[in-house]
Formats: sequence, structure tokens, C-alpha cells
Amino acid sequence: MLSKSEVKYIQSLFQKKFRDAENRYLAEGPKIVDEALNTPGLTVKKIWGLEEWVRRQQPMQPAVEMIPVAGFELEKISQLKTPNEVVALIEKKDSEIIGWQDGAQLVLALDGIQDPGNLGTIIRTADWFGVPGIVCSQDCADMYNSKVVQSAMGSLFRIPVIYTDLPDWLARQNRIPVYGAVLDGVPLSTRPEKAAGVLVIGNESKGIRPEAATHLTHKITIERIGTAESLNAAVATGILLSHLK
Amino acid sequence: MLSKSEVKYIQSLFQKKFRDAENRYLAEGPKIVDEALNTPGLTVKKIWGLEEWVRRQQPMQPAVEMIPVAGFELEKISQLKTPNEVVALIEKKDSEIIGWQDGAQLVLALDGIQDPGNLGTIIRTADWFGVPGIVCSQDCADMYNSKVVQSAMGSLFRIPVIYTDLPDWLARQNRIPVYGAVLDGVPLSTRPEKAAGVLVIGNESKGIRPEAATHLTHKITIERIGTAESLNAAVATGILLSHLK
Repeated sequence: MLSKSEVKYIQSLFQKKFRDAENRYLAEGPKIVDEALNTPGLTVKKIWGLEEWVRRQQPMQPAVEMIPVAGFELEKISQLKTPNEVVALIEKKDSEIIGWQDGAQLVLALDGIQDPGNLGTIIRTADWFGVPGIVCSQDCADMYNSKVVQSAMGSLFRIPVIYTDLPDWLARQNRIPVYGAVLDGVPLSTRPEKAAGVLVIGNESKGIRPEAATHLTHKITIERIGTAESLNAAVATGILLSHLK
Repeated sequence: MLSKSEVKYIQSLFQKKFRDAENRYLAEGPKIVDEALNTPGLTVKKIWGLEEWVRRQQPMQPAVEMIPVAGFELEKISQLKTPNEVVALIEKKDSEIIGWQDGAQLVLALDGIQDPGNLGTIIRTADWFGVPGIVCSQDCADMYNSKVVQSAMGSLFRIPVIYTDLPDWLARQNRIPVYGAVLDGVPLSTRPEKAAGVLVIGNESKGIRPEAATHLTHKITIERIGTAESLNAAVATGILLSHLK
């Protein structure tokens, strides 16, 4: 059973300002909650799940508080069109990107990626390619937005993501190569395969903003063979990482 | 002014069965409608737009019927959360993929891509890389679904997309190389750059189904460096096309 105040508390976390104030966020669905429960160092505070789900999972994770709820209750606390068995309350983790300045790794920097689905897909793609962390400009979508959590899947729990003044952060990366995809750069296919440093990805309609672009040391272009005006930002990220990593 | 029956007609096209019966579909927003109006061979039957939009556009396209509507009327016929100035009624075009069997081009074949946003992004990515056409299994999302139209942008008007029994279609492609991304294939980075023939993309959770996979002549793997379980299907398409084209 869910109390009114509990429903209200959970619903408040649909909004960024309450997630920030509480330092917690929500994740939905058996697959992602299972990944959360099995990620070392991640604190799952509480879980609301359909009775069957709780009966199945509780014995495996006796230390986690699991509340059985009815379908109509789950609907109230779900942000999905079709609620998916379970909602978890997870504690935010302080992120730090470590061990990448040794010149062997490629960190991702995102400039104005505002679409939450895109941000989540980028986080997942970065995880696939073993990126050690992601630096976001302040106006990127919130990584704890439900759509980001959904599309990033378990990768959200694994990759450090930090938000900062991006041009300022880039300015502080002395003597580290900063790559970025622009329209008039070196064709990707002519580049040597490996790169280390920072890879900046811009917003798909505006590109990398001048304040950030001024810090690029290597400009790259994904060659267009056909006629589309732009590539989706997550697709561009995947292409660049697959060539540069 | 919009009549009740007109609203009803437009709303019926939100559903695939009516789009199929009428052989028409809807596209929303000034950018995509502008692309539709400027695509040779595409028939825009009618446009409903805010007065300002109609006043600006009508002189440039006097042959197209444009109906000025109020904001509250646009809301009724829009499928977007925030209606975007204009809705166009467009005639479906018979698609045919031509000139690709010469052994120089790479056609995309999609097996069970059910997410409309993914399908749209794949269509746009294919357009970027100059793919001559896309063959979809019958259970792919409908290319005229509003979310596909939105994420494909103008690329939808340019690339031929056909729906067919995919395993059957693949079986008929004799002596044409059929590439597909699988978990146990040749690493993408060790492949010679260019490829021609067919590139099969599977559903991101199920992969390419056995009925289709049996027709693959070249199995490729996008190497995973990190820990994500899978790549988004559109991201995988972009990576493969960027290496194979």
C-alpha cells in the first residue's frame, strides 16, 4: 500500500529541482532496477514493485526495502505510458572522472545536448566504447531525467557524468588534445585511428558553440555522402568514438 | 476555420490503418513542411497553418491549398506536445530502390526496428551516407508514423523505403554480399573500408532474427571496449555505414 504522502514524494522527483534537493532519483522497469541492485557502490533506497516482482526479488536482496504495490498504485508513480512492474528510488552518486589525463583515454564533452533521449543514448554509447567519463555543459538535459535514465539503461550507473561551465573547463585542459566534429574539419576517414584527450559533441542543430569551439585543437568532419542536413547527436558520437577509440 | 469533419479526418490519419486506406500521411512543423514543398515529385495535398505562416508561404506556393487556422484548432490536429505552426497532408509515394545491384552501393535492410524514433533516425542516417534505399521487415514501425516523420526529417521524402517479407527478400538476393552486425563476427576495425550489397540491422534487444541471419554472407562485430550491453540500433547503423561506405 502506498500512502498519499508517499505518492506525492515520488511524484515530486519527476522534477529536477526536487531531485536536486533530495539528491535522489527514480529508475523504472525490472531490467534497469536489477542492474541498479547489482551495481557496486550504488545505493538503492527503496523499491515499489508489483507483488510478484517483490516476492521474486526480496529473497535475493533482503537488505533493500521493497514495498509491494497494486497496478493502479504503480500507475500513479510511473512516468512511463505503460508502467513496467517496478520503480526504484536511488541515491545520486558524486561523480569524478579519474585516470584519463594520462593521454591514453578519450573523455566526452557535451555542449548543449538538450534532448533527454539523445543524452541517454550518448551515455550508453560512451559506455560501449569504454569512455571514462562525460563532461556536460550546464544546459544539457539532466542525467536523472526519467527519459535519460530509460535510454541510458545501466550505463548511467557506471559512467561518471559531471555538469560544469564547459568553455571554462575546456580552457583548463592545457596541452590535452581537444577534438570536435565541425563542418569544415579534417575528414574522419583520413585520420589516424586512435585519439586521446577530449571529444566535444555539439547540439545537432547549432553545432558546437563558438565559446567551446575556440578550444578545439583538432577539427574533424564526418563526411556526408548523401543529402541529409545533419546527423543525430548520438549517432555522430557513435561514429566518432568508433573511429577515434 | 476547421470543420468538425475535417478535424475528424485529420485525426483518423494518426492511425496506420487510415493512412494506408487514404494513401496519405501528415507532417508537422515549418522546417519539414518547407522541405516537403521543395521536394520534386512529392505531392502536398493541403496545409493547415497559423495565419502568419500561411500569409508568408502562400505567395511562394500558390498552387498548394493552405488553410489558415487558429492556435486552438492547430492543437486538435497536432500530434506534438507543443504544436508547431503547421500541419501538412502529403500523398504517399510508391517507392522503388533502383540502381543498387551494380555492386557499388549498400542497401539497408531493417529487421524488426519497432521504435519509431529509431526508425526515423536510421532513415536520416542512411540519407547522410547516401544509401539508395531501405528494405524493412513487415514488423518495423510504420514509416509514416508521426514520430518517424519527425525524426527522419526531410530524409523521409528522399529515400525509398519498402516493406516486405525480409527473409524472403534476402533469399532472392543471389550473389550479392549480405552484411550484418552480430556478436561473433569479424571485428569492424579489421575490415577493408568499402562494402557493397546489403547491410542488415537487427532489433537492439533481439538482434537479427535467425530467419534473416541465415542469409548473411559477412558477419561483422562492432567491438565493445566498455561494458554497455547493447548499442542503440540507429547508433549501430551510423557506425557501420561510416566504416563500410
